[in-house]
Amino acid sequence: MAGEILDQPVALARTIAGLSSMRHDVRRLARGRQQVLFAARGSSDNAATYGRYLCELVAGRAAGSLAPSVATAYLRRVDLSHALVVCVSQSGETVELVETLDWARDCGAATLAITNAHDSALARGANLALITQAGVERAVPATKTFTTQLVAMVVLAEGLAPEGSALDDLERVPEAVARLVRRRHGVEQAVEMLAERPRTLVTSRGLTYAVAAELALKLEETCLRPVPGLSYADLRHGPIAVVDGQTTAVVLSPRDGPLLAAIAGVVPDLQARGAKVIGIGGEPVLRGAADVAVAGPDLPETLAPIGLVVAGQLVTEGLARALGLDPDAPHGLRKVTETDPGGLR
Amino acid sequence: MAGEILDQPVALARTIAGLSSMRHDVRRLARGRQQVLFAARGSSDNAATYGRYLCELVAGRAAGSLAPSVATAYLRRVDLSHALVVCVSQSGETVELVETLDWARDCGAATLAITNAHDSALARGANLALITQAGVERAVPATKTFTTQLVAMVVLAEGLAPEGSALDDLERVPEAVARLVRRRHGVEQAVEMLAERPRTLVTSRGLTYAVAAELALKLEETCLRPVPGLSYADLRHGPIAVVDGQTTAVVLSPRDGPLLAAIAGVVPDLQARGAKVIGIGGEPVLRGAADVAVAGPDLPETLAPIGLVVAGQLVTEGLARALGLDPDAPHGLRKVTETDPGGLR
Repeated sequence: MAGEILDQPVALARTIAGLSSMRHDVRRLARGRQQVLFAARGSSDNAATYGRYLCELVAGRAAGSLAPSVATAYLRRVDLSHALVVCVSQSGETVELVETLDWARDCGAATLAITNAHDSALARGANLALITQAGVERAVPATKTFTTQLVAMVVLAEGLAPEGSALDDLERVPEAVARLVRRRHGVEQAVEMLAERPRTLVTSRGLTYAVAAELALKLEETCLRPVPGLSYADLRHGPIAVVDGQTTAVVLSPRDGPLLAAIAGVVPDLQARGAKVIGIGGEPVLRGAADVAVAGPDLPETLAPIGLVVAGQLVTEGLARALGLDPDAPHGLRKVTETDPGGLR
Repeated sequence: MAGEILDQPVALARTIAGLSSMRHDVRRLARGRQQVLFAARGSSDNAATYGRYLCELVAGRAAGSLAPSVATAYLRRVDLSHALVVCVSQSGETVELVETLDWARDCGAATLAITNAHDSALARGANLALITQAGVERAVPATKTFTTQLVAMVVLAEGLAPEGSALDDLERVPEAVARLVRRRHGVEQAVEMLAERPRTLVTSRGLTYAVAAELALKLEETCLRPVPGLSYADLRHGPIAVVDGQTTAVVLSPRDGPLLAAIAGVVPDLQARGAKVIGIGGEPVLRGAADVAVAGPDLPETLAPIGLVVAGQLVTEGLARALGLDPDAPHGLRKVTETDPGGLR
């Protein structure tokens, strides 16, 4: 996992080079499709969450997600003649997603695959495939396959937008990520704070919410503790009741955007309940409020998630080692998960 | 909370009587709208999840959810000319949902409110309002306002479907719920098992997934422990790594439907990791697999969630009392939550 975290600047640069021009193909495929619907599981589903926000915020196109069970268990036909359906799977071989893609096409959708395997069933079955160039990923927790999926989401959103612009900034991402993994600002202090307290939660909002969900999943998989990853809006609507002196809260924020002040505003509420707070990114507003600050990327809000998750990966990998666990091979998980090992029918 | 759980058969009967005929108004409003998009927070958002599955499975209409931040923080216009937007709020006064409804109308959507307050800002602002008849709810954890919202979701889905049918069954719901609260089969054993182990998770899939999310939220709010509520598909994709001998897993299932066997199939996997399993519903398949069985309702899968959540409420209320907590007034929560107490701008 440590090596694959370090691979990311190169994997990101390769993926950006490979996919940038494909926004034109996306534009053609999505013409007249008013809705983008994502289907995915695990880390790929968190990448899809980033994609949903991007489609709405960059392209003004309504976005949502599909429950694969509607396709694979209920076998229910749904009118998707207005939709572009995007299936996301690192391996491109997850059975329920291949089935969901076939079902979506039968329901009238235009279909797009985002996968790391160009000759996979998912890539072959889709009208268009955006192939990430992460290279082979061996550790069970996804790192470089996840961040390269985020790049594919940016290309998708650019293809849906009336005119392209953010792709210029995309070129800045590999160097911004390289700086984070080189400097590791605040990572060791964050690991220490997380190791000291048994309860952990991760929160953010808006475009960065997807990173909170992904970092929570990473921490769960590798550090074997239950970690909720929530929008702070949802946190306030109930789950904040369980925050106490045994809790470390990880709060993530970009450096700009309309939510920065509000995200930092959650910190004193968490501290008032006894929690210690690690801020990742959000310089300088969040840094001032948190007990420990981990540096985020020097990227605008739209692209910041790609760097923020890398900062979170560094913390996760460090915590797993501090707890005496193997970050590469979490207890009882496999690289490709079958949702229904015995089949549904 | 205990009193409001018992109120539910009457509240449900009143709501069914009030809303049944409104499916015709829904049908007129939704004509030509290919997509249903929900916006909600907390328990209302879990009711919306049930609504999403119903819209797809009963009506074949694609459904998703809106992130309120797109409307209230990013102020981004999204093309919603193809959409029916449904905002759900018990009080009808949650500021960000009233703002999201106004925004959706400006973006071209037809708008529907589901609320317990007929003279609320949400009801007044929408093209159509489905008013639940829960009566005044005093306990902070939603019970009867939640189950009556589920009834509104059934009416919504019936209105979207080409022809109505499930509404006949809806009449059976109040008596099925009354039987559950009268008999309390397995509730005390489940409370005992949950009290003995510090870790809890709740899982199901498909139509009943919404109940897993809601029961997890109820347990968090009232029993002050972090409780993930997950589709078993998502559970297998990572979070199952943290299941151990300190875990009680609550598995929910209807008695029929294509997922019953697969939901019950998760039980041995959880037990193999050392967890004890409480099954709610799913008779007799799930009952045979679980360590403790709580009776579910005698209702078909489409409507079973309305009864299954009541069985979960009984367990939650009992556990709060067993732990010496006050189920009516959880630590530091209020009945109406403000997502951004200081405002976003």
